[in-house]
Amino acid sequence: MPNPTAAILIIGDEILTGRTRDANMHHLAQELARAGIDLIEARFVRDDHDAIVRAVNDLRKAHDHVFTSGGIGPTHDDITADAVAAAFGVPIGIREDARAILAAHYDRAGLEFNAARQRMARIPEGATLIENPISAAPGFSLGNVHVMAGVPDIFKAMVASLLPRLTGGKPLMSQSWRVEQGEGVIATPLAELAAEFPDLSFGSYPFIQNGVHGSNIVVRGTDPARIDAAMARLAKLFPNPRV
Amino acid sequence: MPNPTAAILIIGDEILTGRTRDANMHHLAQELARAGIDLIEARFVRDDHDAIVRAVNDLRKAHDHVFTSGGIGPTHDDITADAVAAAFGVPIGIREDARAILAAHYDRAGLEFNAARQRMARIPEGATLIENPISAAPGFSLGNVHVMAGVPDIFKAMVASLLPRLTGGKPLMSQSWRVEQGEGVIATPLAELAAEFPDLSFGSYPFIQNGVHGSNIVVRGTDPARIDAAMARLAKLFPNPRV
Repeated sequence: MPNPTAAILIIGDEILTGRTRDANMHHLAQELARAGIDLIEARFVRDDHDAIVRAVNDLRKAHDHVFTSGGIGPTHDDITADAVAAAFGVPIGIREDARAILAAHYDRAGLEFNAARQRMARIPEGATLIENPISAAPGFSLGNVHVMAGVPDIFKAMVASLLPRLTGGKPLMSQSWRVEQGEGVIATPLAELAAEFPDLSFGSYPFIQNGVHGSNIVVRGTDPARIDAAMARLAKLFPNPRV
Repeated sequence: MPNPTAAILIIGDEILTGRTRDANMHHLAQELARAGIDLIEARFVRDDHDAIVRAVNDLRKAHDHVFTSGGIGPTHDDITADAVAAAFGVPIGIREDARAILAAHYDRAGLEFNAARQRMARIPEGATLIENPISAAPGFSLGNVHVMAGVPDIFKAMVASLLPRLTGGKPLMSQSWRVEQGEGVIATPLAELAAEFPDLSFGSYPFIQNGVHGSNIVVRGTDPARIDAAMARLAKLFPNPRV
Protein backbone atom coordinates (compact mmCIF):
# COMPACT_ATOMS: atom_id res chain seq x y z
CA MET A 1 0.00 0.00 0.00
CA PRO A 2 1.41 3.43 -0.86
CA ASN A 3 2.08 5.84 1.99
CA PRO A 4 -0.54 8.48 2.79
CA THR A 5 0.26 11.88 1.24
CA ALA A 6 0.32 15.28 2.90
CA ALA A 7 0.62 18.99 2.28
CA ILE A 8 1.65 21.80 4.63
CA LEU A 9 0.03 25.23 4.56
CA ILE A 10 1.93 27.95 6.43
CA ILE A 11 -0.19 31.04 7.05
CA GLY A 12 1.14 34.51 7.83
CA ASP A 13 2.76 37.64 6.43
CA GLU A 14 5.89 37.34 8.55
CA ILE A 15 7.69 34.79 6.39
CA LEU A 16 6.66 36.12 2.95
CA THR A 17 7.82 39.63 3.88
CA GLY A 18 11.24 38.22 4.77
CA ARG A 19 10.94 39.15 8.43
CA THR A 20 11.37 35.64 9.79
CA ARG A 21 12.67 32.35 8.50
CA ASP A 22 10.25 29.44 8.63
CA ALA A 23 11.04 26.67 11.10
CA ASN A 24 7.78 24.71 11.10
CA MET A 25 7.92 23.26 7.58
CA HIS A 26 11.35 21.79 8.21
CA HIS A 27 10.31 20.28 11.55
CA LEU A 28 7.12 18.74 10.19
CA ALA A 29 8.85 17.46 7.02
CA GLN A 30 11.24 15.49 9.22
CA GLU A 31 8.46 14.18 11.48
CA LEU A 32 6.32 13.10 8.52
CA ALA A 33 9.22 11.27 6.85
CA ARG A 34 9.72 9.38 10.12
CA ALA A 35 5.98 8.58 10.37
CA GLY A 36 5.75 7.25 6.81
CA ILE A 37 3.57 10.07 5.48
CA ASP A 38 4.81 11.50 2.14
CA LEU A 39 4.96 15.29 2.13
CA ILE A 40 4.14 16.21 -1.47
CA GLU A 41 3.69 19.96 -1.34
CA ALA A 42 3.98 23.02 0.87
CA ARG A 43 2.37 26.43 0.48
CA PHE A 44 2.89 29.75 2.20
CA VAL A 45 0.07 32.29 2.01
CA ARG A 46 -0.55 35.66 3.60
CA ASP A 47 -3.08 36.53 6.32
CA ASP A 48 -5.78 36.77 3.66
CA HIS A 49 -9.14 35.06 4.11
CA ASP A 50 -9.74 34.18 0.45
CA ALA A 51 -6.19 32.94 -0.11
CA ILE A 52 -6.45 30.63 2.92
CA VAL A 53 -9.85 29.28 1.85
CA ARG A 54 -8.57 28.59 -1.68
CA ALA A 55 -5.40 26.87 -0.49
CA VAL A 56 -7.24 24.72 2.09
CA ASN A 57 -9.73 23.56 -0.53
CA ASP A 58 -7.07 22.85 -3.18
CA LEU A 59 -4.89 20.90 -0.78
CA ARG A 60 -7.51 18.89 1.13
CA LYS A 61 -8.85 17.50 -2.14
CA ALA A 62 -5.39 16.56 -3.42
CA HIS A 63 -3.88 14.94 -0.32
CA ASP A 64 -4.73 12.56 2.53
CA HIS A 65 -3.68 15.13 5.15
CA VAL A 66 -3.22 18.90 5.28
CA PHE A 67 -1.32 20.47 8.17
CA THR A 68 -1.64 24.21 8.76
CA SER A 69 0.54 26.46 10.88
CA GLY A 70 -0.26 29.97 12.07
CA GLY A 71 -3.14 32.35 12.59
CA ILE A 72 -5.03 30.80 15.53
CA GLY A 73 -4.16 33.28 18.29
CA PRO A 74 -6.35 36.02 19.78
CA THR A 75 -5.32 39.00 17.60
CA HIS A 76 -7.10 40.57 14.62
CA ASP A 77 -4.68 38.95 12.14
CA ASP A 78 -5.58 35.45 13.42
CA ILE A 79 -8.14 34.41 10.83
CA THR A 80 -7.27 30.77 10.16
CA ALA A 81 -10.11 29.10 12.10
CA ASP A 82 -12.73 31.20 10.33
CA ALA A 83 -11.15 30.58 6.93
CA VAL A 84 -11.02 26.79 7.50
CA ALA A 85 -14.69 26.80 8.57
CA ALA A 86 -15.53 28.77 5.41
CA ALA A 87 -13.52 26.33 3.26
CA PHE A 88 -15.63 23.44 4.62
CA GLY A 89 -18.84 25.50 4.61
CA VAL A 90 -19.53 24.80 8.30
CA PRO A 91 -20.46 27.24 11.10
CA ILE A 92 -17.93 28.34 13.72
CA GLY A 93 -18.53 29.46 17.29
CA ILE A 94 -17.30 29.22 20.86
CA ARG A 95 -17.10 25.56 21.81
CA GLU A 96 -17.74 24.62 25.41
CA ASP A 97 -14.89 22.13 25.93
CA ALA A 98 -12.35 24.51 24.35
CA ARG A 99 -13.71 27.39 26.45
CA ALA A 100 -13.39 25.26 29.62
CA ILE A 101 -9.76 24.32 28.83
CA LEU A 102 -8.87 28.00 28.30
CA ALA A 103 -10.85 29.21 31.33
CA ALA A 104 -9.02 26.72 33.59
CA HIS A 105 -5.66 27.74 32.10
CA TYR A 106 -6.18 31.48 32.68
CA ASP A 107 -7.65 30.79 36.11
CA ARG A 108 -4.51 28.85 37.12
CA ALA A 109 -2.36 31.65 35.72
CA GLY A 110 -4.38 34.33 37.52
CA LEU A 111 -5.11 36.11 34.22
CA GLU A 112 -8.38 37.54 32.98
CA PHE A 113 -10.20 35.30 30.46
CA ASN A 114 -11.23 38.29 28.35
CA ALA A 115 -13.04 38.52 25.00
CA ALA A 116 -9.86 38.30 22.89
CA ARG A 117 -8.78 35.14 24.68
CA GLN A 118 -12.27 33.66 24.39
CA ARG A 119 -11.90 34.01 20.61
CA MET A 120 -9.42 31.13 20.79
CA ALA A 121 -12.31 28.84 21.83
CA ARG A 122 -13.99 29.42 18.47
CA ILE A 123 -13.85 26.05 16.71
CA PRO A 124 -15.57 24.98 13.48
CA GLU A 125 -18.48 22.57 13.92
CA GLY A 126 -17.50 18.92 13.69
CA ALA A 127 -13.82 19.41 14.55
CA THR A 128 -11.71 17.36 16.98
CA LEU A 129 -9.42 19.35 19.30
CA ILE A 130 -5.61 19.07 19.16
CA GLU A 131 -4.02 19.37 22.59
CA ASN A 132 -1.73 22.33 23.31
CA PRO A 133 0.29 21.46 26.41
CA ILE A 134 2.14 24.81 26.33
CA SER A 135 -0.41 27.61 26.18
CA ALA A 136 -3.70 25.64 26.34
CA ALA A 137 -5.41 27.22 23.28
CA PRO A 138 -6.20 24.10 21.25
CA GLY A 139 -5.67 23.39 17.58
CA PHE A 140 -8.22 21.26 15.76
CA SER A 141 -8.67 18.65 13.03
CA LEU A 142 -11.60 19.18 10.66
CA GLY A 143 -11.89 16.33 8.16
CA ASN A 144 -8.34 15.80 6.91
CA VAL A 145 -7.18 19.33 7.80
CA HIS A 146 -5.14 19.74 10.98
CA VAL A 147 -4.94 23.32 12.22
CA MET A 148 -2.04 24.25 14.50
CA ALA A 149 -0.32 27.30 15.98
CA GLY A 150 2.55 29.13 14.29
CA VAL A 151 4.80 29.73 17.31
CA PRO A 152 7.46 27.04 16.77
CA ASP A 153 7.45 25.58 20.31
CA ILE A 154 3.67 25.30 20.34
CA PHE A 155 3.59 23.95 16.78
CA LYS A 156 6.05 21.21 17.74
CA ALA A 157 4.02 20.29 20.82
CA MET A 158 0.82 20.10 18.76
CA VAL A 159 2.50 17.95 16.10
CA ALA A 160 3.60 15.59 18.88
CA SER A 161 0.00 15.45 20.19
CA LEU A 162 -1.46 14.86 16.74
CA LEU A 163 0.84 12.48 14.84
CA PRO A 164 0.27 9.29 16.84
CA ARG A 165 -3.44 9.63 15.95
CA LEU A 166 -2.83 9.52 12.20
CA THR A 167 -2.15 6.29 10.36
CA GLY A 168 1.29 6.32 8.83
CA GLY A 169 2.69 4.09 6.12
CA LYS A 170 6.21 2.71 5.99
CA PRO A 171 8.84 5.17 7.21
CA LEU A 172 10.95 6.66 4.46
CA MET A 173 14.66 5.91 4.90
CA SER A 174 17.60 7.47 3.17
CA GLN A 175 21.35 7.17 2.80
CA SER A 176 23.69 9.56 1.07
CA TRP A 177 26.95 9.25 -0.85
CA ARG A 178 29.34 12.14 -1.32
CA VAL A 179 30.95 12.39 -4.76
CA GLU A 180 33.72 14.88 -5.40
CA GLN A 181 33.03 15.17 -9.12
CA GLY A 182 30.77 17.69 -10.82
CA GLU A 183 27.20 16.72 -11.64
CA GLY A 184 28.08 16.96 -15.34
CA VAL A 185 30.44 13.98 -14.96
CA ILE A 186 28.15 11.75 -12.92
CA ALA A 187 24.80 12.57 -14.57
CA THR A 188 24.71 9.77 -17.15
CA PRO A 189 25.88 6.82 -15.01
CA LEU A 190 23.62 8.06 -12.18
CA ALA A 191 20.55 8.15 -14.45
CA GLU A 192 21.33 4.56 -15.56
CA LEU A 193 21.60 3.42 -11.95
CA ALA A 194 18.32 5.17 -11.04
CA ALA A 195 16.59 3.31 -13.89
CA GLU A 196 17.77 -0.01 -12.42
CA PHE A 197 16.14 0.78 -9.05
CA PRO A 198 12.68 2.12 -9.96
CA ASP A 199 11.44 1.50 -6.38
CA LEU A 200 13.97 4.00 -4.98
CA SER A 201 14.43 7.71 -5.60
CA PHE A 202 17.87 9.16 -6.39
CA GLY A 203 18.44 12.84 -5.72
CA SER A 204 21.60 14.72 -6.66
CA TYR A 205 22.37 17.80 -4.54
CA PRO A 206 25.37 19.67 -5.89
CA PHE A 207 27.75 21.67 -3.70
CA ILE A 208 30.80 23.84 -4.13
CA GLN A 209 33.20 23.51 -1.21
CA ASN A 210 36.68 25.03 -1.12
CA GLY A 211 36.53 25.28 -4.89
CA VAL A 212 35.63 21.60 -5.32
CA HIS A 213 32.45 20.88 -7.30
CA GLY A 214 30.73 17.80 -5.97
CA SER A 215 27.37 16.32 -5.21
CA ASN A 216 25.61 14.45 -2.45
CA ILE A 217 23.63 11.59 -3.91
CA VAL A 218 20.67 10.75 -1.68
CA VAL A 219 18.92 7.41 -2.10
CA ARG A 220 15.47 7.16 -0.56
CA GLY A 221 13.03 4.31 -0.19
CA THR A 222 11.13 2.16 2.27
CA ASP A 223 13.15 -1.08 1.95
CA PRO A 224 16.53 -0.83 3.72
CA ALA A 225 17.95 -3.86 1.84
CA ARG A 226 17.27 -2.18 -1.51
CA ILE A 227 18.87 1.06 -0.31
CA ASP A 228 21.94 -0.91 0.82
CA ALA A 229 22.15 -2.55 -2.60
CA ALA A 230 21.98 0.82 -4.35
CA MET A 231 24.61 2.29 -2.01
CA ALA A 232 26.99 -0.58 -2.85
CA ARG A 233 26.54 0.16 -6.55
CA LEU A 234 27.10 3.89 -5.96
CA ALA A 235 30.32 3.24 -4.06
CA LYS A 236 31.58 1.18 -6.99
CA LEU A 237 30.50 3.71 -9.62
CA PHE A 238 31.90 6.75 -7.81
CA PRO A 239 34.69 5.58 -5.48
CA ASN A 240 35.36 8.15 -2.81
CA PRO A 241 39.10 8.94 -2.70
CA ARG A 242 38.97 9.79 0.99
CA VAL A 243 37.61 6.44 2.15
CA MET B 1 0.03 52.44 -8.16
CA PRO B 2 0.10 49.19 -6.19
CA ASN B 3 3.35 47.24 -6.06
CA PRO B 4 3.84 44.34 -8.49
CA THR B 5 3.05 40.94 -6.93
CA ALA B 6 5.15 37.80 -6.94
CA ALA B 7 5.19 34.12 -6.06
CA ILE B 8 8.10 31.77 -5.41
CA LEU B 9 8.12 28.15 -6.56
CA ILE B 10 10.79 25.97 -4.95
CA ILE B 11 11.30 22.68 -6.78
CA GLY B 12 12.90 19.56 -5.36
CA ASP B 13 12.44 16.57 -3.08
CA GLU B 14 15.23 17.54 -0.69
CA ILE B 15 13.25 20.07 1.35
CA LEU B 16 9.91 18.24 1.45
CA THR B 17 11.59 15.07 2.69
CA GLY B 18 13.12 17.05 5.57
CA ARG B 19 16.68 16.51 4.38
CA THR B 20 17.58 20.17 4.01
CA ARG B 21 16.21 23.45 5.24
CA ASP B 22 15.26 25.97 2.57
CA ALA B 23 17.41 29.10 2.34
CA ASN B 24 16.29 30.53 -1.00
CA MET B 25 12.76 31.57 -0.07
CA HIS B 26 14.02 33.59 2.88
CA HIS B 27 16.71 35.31 0.80
CA LEU B 28 14.37 36.21 -2.05
CA ALA B 29 11.61 37.35 0.34
CA GLN B 30 14.04 39.89 1.80
CA GLU B 31 15.28 41.03 -1.63
CA LEU B 32 11.73 41.45 -2.98
CA ALA B 33 10.63 43.49 0.05
CA ARG B 34 13.61 45.79 -0.58
CA ALA B 35 12.77 46.04 -4.31
CA GLY B 36 9.11 46.92 -3.71
CA ILE B 37 7.69 43.68 -5.10
CA ASP B 38 5.03 42.08 -2.86
CA LEU B 39 5.62 38.38 -2.28
CA ILE B 40 2.09 36.96 -1.98
CA GLU B 41 2.65 33.22 -2.03
CA ALA B 42 5.30 30.49 -2.02
CA ARG B 43 5.01 26.87 -3.05
CA PHE B 44 7.29 23.88 -2.66
CA VAL B 45 6.74 20.94 -5.02
CA ARG B 46 8.60 17.70 -5.68
CA ASP B 47 10.67 16.79 -8.75
CA ASP B 48 7.47 15.86 -10.56
CA HIS B 49 6.77 17.09 -14.08
CA ASP B 50 3.01 17.46 -13.76
CA ALA B 51 3.21 19.13 -10.35
CA ILE B 52 5.70 21.71 -11.69
CA VAL B 53 3.59 22.41 -14.79
CA ARG B 54 0.46 22.87 -12.67
CA ALA B 55 2.16 25.17 -10.16
CA VAL B 56 3.83 27.30 -12.87
CA ASN B 57 0.52 27.78 -14.66
CA ASP B 58 -1.44 28.58 -11.47
CA LEU B 59 1.14 31.09 -10.27
CA ARG B 60 1.98 32.88 -13.51
CA LYS B 61 -1.68 33.70 -14.07
CA ALA B 62 -2.17 34.98 -10.52
CA HIS B 63 0.96 37.15 -10.10
CA ASP B 64 3.11 39.68 -11.95
CA HIS B 65 6.25 37.61 -11.39
CA VAL B 66 7.04 33.99 -10.56
CA PHE B 67 10.52 33.04 -9.36
CA THR B 68 11.55 29.39 -9.41
CA SER B 69 14.47 27.72 -7.66
CA GLY B 70 15.91 24.28 -8.36
CA GLY B 71 16.03 21.56 -10.98
CA ILE B 72 18.11 23.14 -13.78
CA GLY B 73 21.35 21.14 -13.42
CA PRO B 74 22.61 18.28 -15.60
CA THR B 75 21.22 15.25 -13.70
CA HIS B 76 18.14 13.13 -14.41
CA ASP B 77 16.17 14.80 -11.61
CA ASP B 78 16.64 18.25 -13.20
CA ILE B 79 13.36 18.61 -15.04
CA THR B 80 12.40 22.23 -14.44
CA ALA B 81 13.29 23.70 -17.87
CA ASP B 82 11.23 21.04 -19.67
CA ALA B 83 8.31 21.51 -17.28
CA VAL B 84 8.33 25.31 -17.73
CA ALA B 85 8.41 24.88 -21.53
CA ALA B 86 5.46 22.47 -21.25
CA ALA B 87 3.56 24.93 -19.03
CA PHE B 88 3.89 27.59 -21.74
CA GLY B 89 3.36 25.10 -24.57
CA VAL B 90 6.61 26.10 -26.31
CA PRO B 91 9.41 23.87 -27.69
CA ILE B 92 12.71 23.44 -25.87
CA GLY B 93 16.13 22.64 -27.30
CA ILE B 94 19.83 23.44 -27.13
CA ARG B 95 20.25 27.19 -27.60
CA GLU B 96 23.38 28.41 -29.31
CA ASP B 97 24.24 31.35 -27.00
CA ALA B 98 23.72 29.23 -23.89
CA ARG B 99 25.81 26.42 -25.43
CA ALA B 100 28.60 28.90 -26.22
CA ILE B 101 28.65 30.26 -22.65
CA LEU B 102 28.89 26.74 -21.24
CA ALA B 103 31.47 25.58 -23.83
CA ALA B 104 33.73 28.54 -22.98
CA HIS B 105 33.32 27.86 -19.24
CA TYR B 106 34.29 24.18 -19.49
CA ASP B 107 37.09 25.01 -21.90
CA ARG B 108 38.58 27.49 -19.40
CA ALA B 109 38.18 24.91 -16.63
CA GLY B 110 39.78 22.16 -18.75
CA LEU B 111 36.71 19.96 -18.36
CA GLU B 112 34.89 17.92 -20.97
CA PHE B 113 31.71 19.56 -22.28
CA ASN B 114 29.84 16.26 -22.35
CA ALA B 115 26.24 15.39 -23.14
CA ALA B 116 25.01 15.85 -19.55
CA ARG B 117 26.53 19.33 -19.36
CA GLN B 118 25.12 20.24 -22.77
CA ARG B 119 21.67 19.52 -21.33
CA MET B 120 22.06 22.74 -19.37
CA ALA B 121 21.96 24.68 -22.66
CA ARG B 122 18.40 23.48 -23.27
CA ILE B 123 16.28 26.64 -23.03
CA PRO B 124 12.60 27.08 -23.92
CA GLU B 125 11.92 29.06 -27.10
CA GLY B 126 11.43 32.78 -26.52
CA ALA B 127 13.25 32.93 -23.18
CA THR B 128 15.81 35.53 -22.05
CA LEU B 129 18.90 34.17 -20.28
CA ILE B 130 19.72 35.01 -16.64
CA GLU B 131 23.44 35.31 -16.02
CA ASN B 132 25.15 32.83 -13.69
CA PRO B 133 28.50 34.31 -12.72
CA ILE B 134 29.39 31.29 -10.56
CA SER B 135 29.00 28.14 -12.62
CA ALA B 136 28.01 29.59 -16.05
CA ALA B 137 24.89 27.45 -16.67
CA PRO B 138 22.30 30.19 -17.21
CA GLY B 139 18.82 30.57 -15.77
CA PHE B 140 16.11 32.08 -17.95
CA SER B 141 13.02 34.27 -17.93
CA LEU B 142 10.08 33.06 -20.02
CA GLY B 143 7.20 35.54 -19.93
CA ASN B 144 6.82 36.45 -16.26
CA VAL B 145 8.50 33.24 -14.98
CA HIS B 146 12.12 33.51 -13.86
CA VAL B 147 13.88 30.15 -13.61
CA MET B 148 16.94 29.92 -11.37
CA ALA B 149 19.24 27.34 -9.80
CA GLY B 150 18.65 25.75 -6.38
CA VAL B 151 22.20 25.84 -5.00
CA PRO B 152 21.96 28.82 -2.60
CA ASP B 153 25.13 30.65 -3.74
CA ILE B 154 24.13 30.38 -7.40
CA PHE B 155 20.53 31.28 -6.64
CA LYS B 156 21.69 34.45 -4.86
CA ALA B 157 23.96 35.42 -7.76
CA MET B 158 21.14 34.90 -10.27
CA VAL B 159 18.72 36.96 -8.17
CA ALA B 160 21.31 39.75 -8.15
CA SER B 161 21.61 39.50 -11.96
CA LEU B 162 17.85 39.50 -12.47
CA LEU B 163 16.27 41.94 -10.02
CA PRO B 164 17.57 45.23 -11.48
CA ARG B 165 15.80 44.24 -14.73
CA LEU B 166 12.37 44.02 -13.12
CA THR B 167 10.34 47.10 -12.30
CA GLY B 168 9.77 47.42 -8.59
CA GLY B 169 7.21 49.50 -6.74
CA LYS B 170 7.79 51.34 -3.50
CA PRO B 171 9.99 49.46 -1.03
CA LEU B 172 8.13 47.99 1.92
CA MET B 173 9.39 49.31 5.25
CA SER B 174 8.72 48.03 8.72
CA GLN B 175 9.29 48.82 12.36
CA SER B 176 8.57 46.61 15.34
CA TRP B 177 7.54 47.18 18.94
CA ARG B 178 8.11 44.65 21.68
CA VAL B 179 5.29 44.24 24.18
CA GLU B 180 5.74 42.10 27.27
CA GLN B 181 2.07 41.30 27.65
CA GLY B 182 0.23 38.31 26.24
CA GLU B 183 -1.61 38.65 22.94
CA GLY B 184 -4.87 38.12 24.80
CA VAL B 185 -4.35 41.43 26.64
CA ILE B 186 -3.31 43.52 23.66
CA ALA B 187 -5.60 42.05 20.99
CA THR B 188 -8.53 44.49 21.32
CA PRO B 189 -6.61 47.81 21.51
CA LEU B 190 -4.31 46.58 18.73
CA ALA B 191 -7.25 45.80 16.42
CA GLU B 192 -8.64 49.30 17.08
CA LEU B 193 -5.29 50.88 16.23
CA ALA B 194 -5.00 48.80 13.02
CA ALA B 195 -8.45 50.05 11.96
CA GLU B 196 -7.24 53.66 12.32
CA PHE B 197 -4.31 53.01 9.92
CA PRO B 198 -5.87 51.09 7.00
CA ASP B 199 -2.85 51.91 4.77
CA LEU B 200 -0.50 49.98 7.09
CA SER B 201 -0.44 46.33 8.12
CA PHE B 202 -0.09 45.32 11.77
CA GLY B 203 1.24 41.86 12.53
CA SER B 204 1.43 40.36 16.01
CA TYR B 205 4.11 37.70 16.51
CA PRO B 206 3.87 36.13 19.94
CA PHE B 207 6.84 34.78 21.85
CA ILE B 208 7.53 33.02 25.12
CA GLN B 209 10.86 34.03 26.60
CA ASN B 210 12.05 33.04 30.07
CA GLY B 211 8.45 32.32 30.95
CA VAL B 212 7.26 35.77 29.84
CA HIS B 213 4.48 35.80 27.24
CA GLY B 214 4.87 38.76 24.91
CA SER B 215 4.51 39.79 21.31
CA ASN B 216 6.44 41.69 18.67
CA ILE B 217 4.11 44.05 16.86
CA VAL B 218 5.37 44.69 13.33
CA VAL B 219 4.02 47.68 11.41
CA ARG B 220 4.57 47.58 7.65
CA GLY B 221 3.88 50.09 4.90
CA THR B 222 5.42 52.21 2.18
CA ASP B 223 5.14 55.65 3.87
CA PRO B 224 7.74 56.08 6.64
CA ALA B 225 5.88 59.05 8.20
CA ARG B 226 2.74 56.94 8.63
CA ILE B 227 4.77 54.12 10.17
CA ASP B 228 6.34 56.62 12.61
CA ALA B 229 2.89 57.89 13.56
CA ALA B 230 1.69 54.34 14.22
CA MET B 231 4.80 53.55 16.26
CA ALA B 232 4.19 56.60 18.46
CA ARG B 233 0.64 55.39 19.13
CA LEU B 234 1.91 51.87 19.89
CA ALA B 235 4.45 53.20 22.39
CA LYS B 236 1.67 55.07 24.19
CA LEU B 237 -0.76 52.13 24.14
CA PHE B 238 1.77 49.54 25.30
CA PRO B 239 4.55 51.36 27.20
CA ASN B 240 7.65 49.23 27.41
CA PRO B 241 8.77 49.01 31.07
CA ARG B 242 12.40 48.54 30.08
CA VAL B 243 12.71 51.81 28.14
